[in-house]
Order: sequence, then structure tokens, then C-alpha cells
Amino acid sequence: MSEEKGYIYGKNAVLEALESESKIVKIFLCYGVQSSQISSIYNKAGKKRIQCVVYDKRKFGELEKNVCPPDSRSQGVIALRQMVEPLTVSELVKLAQKKQNSLIILLDEITDPHNLGAIARSAECAGAAGIILPERNTSPITPVAIKASAGALEHLPIAYSSNLNVAIKKLKDEGFWLIGTSDKAQKDYTEDLYDSPIGLVIGSEGSGIRQSVMKHCDILVKIPIAGKINSLNASVAAGVIIFEIVRQRTLKIK
Amino acid sequence: MSEEKGYIYGKNAVLEALESESKIVKIFLCYGVQSSQISSIYNKAGKKRIQCVVYDKRKFGELEKNVCPPDSRSQGVIALRQMVEPLTVSELVKLAQKKQNSLIILLDEITDPHNLGAIARSAECAGAAGIILPERNTSPITPVAIKASAGALEHLPIAYSSNLNVAIKKLKDEGFWLIGTSDKAQKDYTEDLYDSPIGLVIGSEGSGIRQSVMKHCDILVKIPIAGKINSLNASVAAGVIIFEIVRQRTLKIK
Repeated sequence: MSEEKGYIYGKNAVLEALESESKIVKIFLCYGVQSSQISSIYNKAGKKRIQCVVYDKRKFGELEKNVCPPDSRSQGVIALRQMVEPLTVSELVKLAQKKQNSLIILLDEITDPHNLGAIARSAECAGAAGIILPERNTSPITPVAIKASAGALEHLPIAYSSNLNVAIKKLKDEGFWLIGTSDKAQKDYTEDLYDSPIGLVIGSEGSGIRQSVMKHCDILVKIPIAGKINSLNASVAAGVIIFEIVRQRTLKIK
Repeated sequence: MSEEKGYIYGKNAVLEALESESKIVKIFLCYGVQSSQISSIYNKAGKKRIQCVVYDKRKFGELEKNVCPPDSRSQGVIALRQMVEPLTVSELVKLAQKKQNSLIILLDEITDPHNLGAIARSAECAGAAGIILPERNTSPITPVAIKASAGALEHLPIAYSSNLNVAIKKLKDEGFWLIGTSDKAQKDYTEDLYDSPIGLVIGSEGSGIRQSVMKHCDILVKIPIAGKINSLNASVAAGVIIFEIVRQRTLKIK
């Protein structure tokens, strides 16, 4: 697999990336920046023999301008990393099949990089095999998404599919159950549904899973809502269902 | 209770606000903006006899500049709303006590308005009684927070406390169990813990609940993490625990 370079910024994101197995090539710090997190970054980088470079404010500002989107702050720390190239859906499925009852997350038109990042973070924390993204109408893996993922998007396996329904068919053929979310679903997400390998489809914030994708799901589930607002944030809904799957599976192992 | 005015923007946020009981005084639309959501906004506003005003692009741009933060887009729709003034902690507790086994969320130094909004949205969707915020070191209820809350921050009861530990003591005195989150906790969040009225304390993204607050909690719980990243996004973690409380309580009613 070839690799391409990219940047990650913010104290927590860089620290998490150092703690994970992401390949950080170099860390840039702004002169004068100090905190316990910065000390940890120095320590961990030292142990991993990663070079830390201190730039004066002008030079750091220029790097920041090139790397971070205008609404974001680097908190004085930017890391240059190597990213692994995406897998094909078949490669991801093969990877998932090494574990029993695996979990793959499919994102249908998640366009907000914060949501993409937070969902990737939840998927990684839950031990999911990876994420499938459609090639179009999806948030690219921007620095904002990587920051929101706390580094998960740097090492969580990701596969792109030209058409999400093709990926769904492939997963079904390989024995996965495809679960979609819909506020009109008959079943609650807390029902006993997650015994097989699961492909969990998460729809966009505004309009949920597209009809054309929903009809290919094996089961639709809903999170029961008690309030006046009729839906959760997309990444919160994904997290709630992902960790219910983990809860049920852990219970069965015990 | 006196009321102050504020703004809300974005198609989803305005639509959710119209569907909830939030008091919208007037809706401003940018000339030429069209979609099925905009049509729904017109319809619902019409039924509620709320005035819709169409501004030309220049005039709308000026309003947008005054109302929305620079990194956000209004999608051509801004609503002027009335916000309910915050409660005292005692008032919120009294409100909560009208329900059996109620839930109050306490936020310890959540400074990111996206997280504040998403947590408020989850709290509202789960039927929580309300949120307690410390007066300092917390994100103010900005338009970004309101948008992220999908309007929940407009009608979910909110109480401010000069010191979170004073609020915790008050809740304990009134029979609430105070549950905090910590990655070093002995108990999993899925254990049978939520029979009493619950005060759930959520800590900040970077450093979790402060030690000074944590020591006043009755129980600490953790979400078991399988990946390399060691924590979930604050609003996702809050959502996962809040909906586990709902799941357990629903199960006991059945």
C-alpha cells in the first residue's frame, strides 16, 4: 500500500495520534506554547524518536494558515503524518471476517466533517472493522474530520464504494446483516438483533438514509424519542446504536 | 419569567423549532431560497401565524453577518425567537420531581458549543428534566449551540449554578444519585445503576470531570473502549449513557 502525507492539529488530536499507532513524521510547535499536554507530546514524541520542531510565531502562523481551516485553531501544535491508502470493500470485508461477529459502518451522505470524525472515533472505540464511504456526496477526510475523530481516521480501515448499494450487496453476500436507522422503524435498536456480522448504515443529519439505500437493509431500527425534537445528532445516534451492539455482544460472551 | 430574544438559523434548526413549542416571533428568508424544507417552514409558520419576511440578498447578508458566527451558514433562513430565562437549581429539581426516576444532566466545563448543543439535544430526546451548567468556564448558549441542539436549547429547562458542587449537594439532598464518568471507573455504564432519580455529570472533551467535582459523585462509570483511541467524543459519550439509562428504565416498566 502506498501512503500519502497529511496534517493533524490540536493538542488532543496530536496526543491521541502519538498514543495510537499512527505514523507521525514530524511535529511542529509554536514558540512559547506550554501546558501539561505539550509536555506529554514532547515526551511521547521523544520515546518514538519523532522530531519536534519549534517555529517562531510568524513561521508557525504561516504553516497554520496552510494546514488548518479558517475557523479552527491548532493550539500551537501541528503534526505531519502518513496516512494509509483506503481499502476496497472486498479488502475491508476480508479484514472484518478475521473476527467473529464483526461490525462495519456504512455512511450514507454524511457531509459534515465533524459527524464523519465523531462516527469514526466511535467506530474505532467500539472495535469496528472499518467504515465504508460512498465516493460522492460525502465529507472528505479533512483536518477538521481528523481532529473530530481524535486520530481514528488515521488508522481505522476505510473503504470507498462508487455506489453504497453495491457495497451493501457485497456485505450481504458475505453473510452480513444490514441494519439501517429510520424514525419510522418498527423495531427498537435495543432488541436482540446483532448476532451475525453487522453492516450498520447511518444516514445524514438532515434527511436520514436515502430510500434507495434503505430498501436494501435487512432490518430498520429506531431510537425511541421522548422529547419534542424528533431526532438525535447523526454521530450521537450512531454512537448509541454502536455501543448497544457492543453491550449485547459482551453480554453473550460472559 | 421574563423573556429575552435571540436568533436561530439553518433549515433544520428553524424547522425543528417550529415543530417544537419554541416561541418564534418572525422568520427571515433570503430571496430565491427554495427547497422542500423551506416549503415546510412556510407551511408550519403559516399555521402558527408566524410572519415570514423575504429579504433581498444584500439585506439578508447583513442580518446573517450580525446573527451567525463567521464559520456558519444560515442556508437562507433565520428565525427570531423568544428564549425562556434560566431556572435556579431548586426550581429545576422541583420540576424534575414531578416525574418518577427523573434525569438531570450536569455539564462540567463543556466549552465547545457543538458539544453543548448535541448534549442538550440528546437530553431533550431522552426526556431528561433539564441541564445544570456552571456559570463560568462553560460554553454560552450561542447560535452555534442552538443550531447543534436542533432547537432543544430553546425549551429544555436550564439552570445555572455558581459552583457545580453546590448543585450536586442540592441534588443529593433531594434524593438524586450522582453519577460521573471516568475512564478509570470500576463499573461499566451498562450495570444496573439507574433506579433512583439520577444526576449525570459529563466532563469536558479534553480532561473529563474535574477531580474536585468527581469526588462528590456517588458512582463513577466508564464506557469500555476496544480501540486505540481512549475516549469518545463528549456528546457521544453523554448520548450513549443517557440512552442506556432510558433502556434500563423502559425495560423495568415493561
